[in-house]
Amino acid sequence: MLKVPAHQVAGHRADRGKLGPRVDDSGRFYKPLQGDERGAREVAFYTSFSSDTKVPNHISRFFPKFYGTQLVEASDGSGMKPHVVLQDLTFSRVNPSVMDIKIGSRTWGPEESADQIQKCLKKDRESSSLSLGFRLSGMQIFGTKESGFWKPEKKWIQSISTDEVRLLLKKFVSSDTSALKPDCAFASIVYGGSKGILSQLLELKAWFEDQTSYHFFACSILMMFEKELALEGKSPCPEIKLVDFAHVFEGRGVIDHNFLGGLCSLIKFISEILTTPEDSTTNVLVEDAHRSHVYPENGSA
Amino acid sequence: MLKVPAHQVAGHRADRGKLGPRVDDSGRFYKPLQGDERGAREVAFYTSFSSDTKVPNHISRFFPKFYGTQLVEASDGSGMKPHVVLQDLTFSRVNPSVMDIKIGSRTWGPEESADQIQKCLKKDRESSSLSLGFRLSGMQIFGTKESGFWKPEKKWIQSISTDEVRLLLKKFVSSDTSALKPDCAFASIVYGGSKGILSQLLELKAWFEDQTSYHFFACSILMMFEKELALEGKSPCPEIKLVDFAHVFEGRGVIDHNFLGGLCSLIKFISEILTTPEDSTTNVLVEDAHRSHVYPENGSA
Repeated sequence: MLKVPAHQVAGHRADRGKLGPRVDDSGRFYKPLQGDERGAREVAFYTSFSSDTKVPNHISRFFPKFYGTQLVEASDGSGMKPHVVLQDLTFSRVNPSVMDIKIGSRTWGPEESADQIQKCLKKDRESSSLSLGFRLSGMQIFGTKESGFWKPEKKWIQSISTDEVRLLLKKFVSSDTSALKPDCAFASIVYGGSKGILSQLLELKAWFEDQTSYHFFACSILMMFEKELALEGKSPCPEIKLVDFAHVFEGRGVIDHNFLGGLCSLIKFISEILTTPEDSTTNVLVEDAHRSHVYPENGSA
Repeated sequence: MLKVPAHQVAGHRADRGKLGPRVDDSGRFYKPLQGDERGAREVAFYTSFSSDTKVPNHISRFFPKFYGTQLVEASDGSGMKPHVVLQDLTFSRVNPSVMDIKIGSRTWGPEESADQIQKCLKKDRESSSLSLGFRLSGMQIFGTKESGFWKPEKKWIQSISTDEVRLLLKKFVSSDTSALKPDCAFASIVYGGSKGILSQLLELKAWFEDQTSYHFFACSILMMFEKELALEGKSPCPEIKLVDFAHVFEGRGVIDHNFLGGLCSLIKFISEILTTPEDSTTNVLVEDAHRSHVYPENGSA
């Protein structure tokens, strides 16, 4: 009994007869393999990475567990299709706030065609990828049981300015998703602390300064936590995971400077929220953002 | 009495009636201003940077001193032209080995025309910029008083492979420029040590992880040292300097992830030479490189 993932914020969705990933009741995520070299590269990456003894445990925990590939009935009714079977990253979570951040100023790999390069370059220039080294691909923020999730439109979120990106990174860890000014109430327990998101990003950064095996293009970092746990005085379980490896290439002895540069840029944004949460340059944007680009969506899964 | 710089390894040269930079006898370097926005940007950068109190001294020492602009007779005989007056970076050196490394996988700034982007992108793809995050733009290695400098052709050096880049970074700190295998004899005193090039690069990196004022496109790091001093048992005075600021743009609160990524990649190459100088993967390339692409040049200035 496969179903559409409740907390997917980016990528193709398996609803309305379309092809997309689904999850089962035991914590597995079934992602249809793209029929071209992208699918082949994603399987090649998971196969190689999951058996790579050079990757330390404190890094491999940032990647979904890999359970091989499996023929599964496709969500678009097109019959049995090969899927990559992965860990369902939000399986044990109730109402997670999730942000999908595509890392790198360049989202095209070394083997793309001239057409594909132009297409990706255009998108990198129109989004914040080129300027910031990353772009928001999708997000949901849990509000309350009554209001459910705040989930801005994907098309809008990929076209926003630097100040709006900064604002959403603040809003992500604020108590009231409809407030005019983000209060960053959960910044210190989600982004900060020895087990917070910033610490995890810094661990990842240290690995990227050293590893020369893989180059990750168009790969995303998911940031997740649970506001309700925080409200109960518990840890909100902040966590980062890397996803989407259809454009991973061999590093051939060179570090992934494209990913690393974008990661450092994201780290700088998160650090600044922790050190100067009251910085008000972007406050004026809140109302606009909230008024124009939100659509209501029912709450918990 | 202005003269052509003796140790210039990249950029336009002022010889044979061409327009290029010249130096005087008191340690100043006169660089003709490009008539378009590039010249304006370079002056704007030096003006802003030299009075920027946020830049710490241990970072500003990596930049040439700026003495303003001055009308000077152009080297191509075209009359008085505005020049930017800078510190002559090799003034106090006798026979410096010099390497010019253009940093960043992307050498085009945010305001380039579509044509200019395509032109730069092509060069970034054909050189090592896109793959390594930097490319060698020019170099000279001092051999002996008899043999003078080894100075590979600029055109070749900008088209070399990853392994050849690694080889030249080793050759740069080896005792014999004509040897088949670079011995990395000077690696520990040029690249290594608390005042060596790696330490300086790491200081620069720490600043780039934090600074959000400037984005440096198509800017180079010069690495310099003097082999003769090392042979006399003295410090070879290893030093890095940043040069070429015609494509510097305002950072607007975002780190320069393009420069930082390339810098981290260069740091990884230099670190590996220090930790595994005997790595032999590139040795076979030495003979080829030396045979095909060297032209003899007379030694000291």
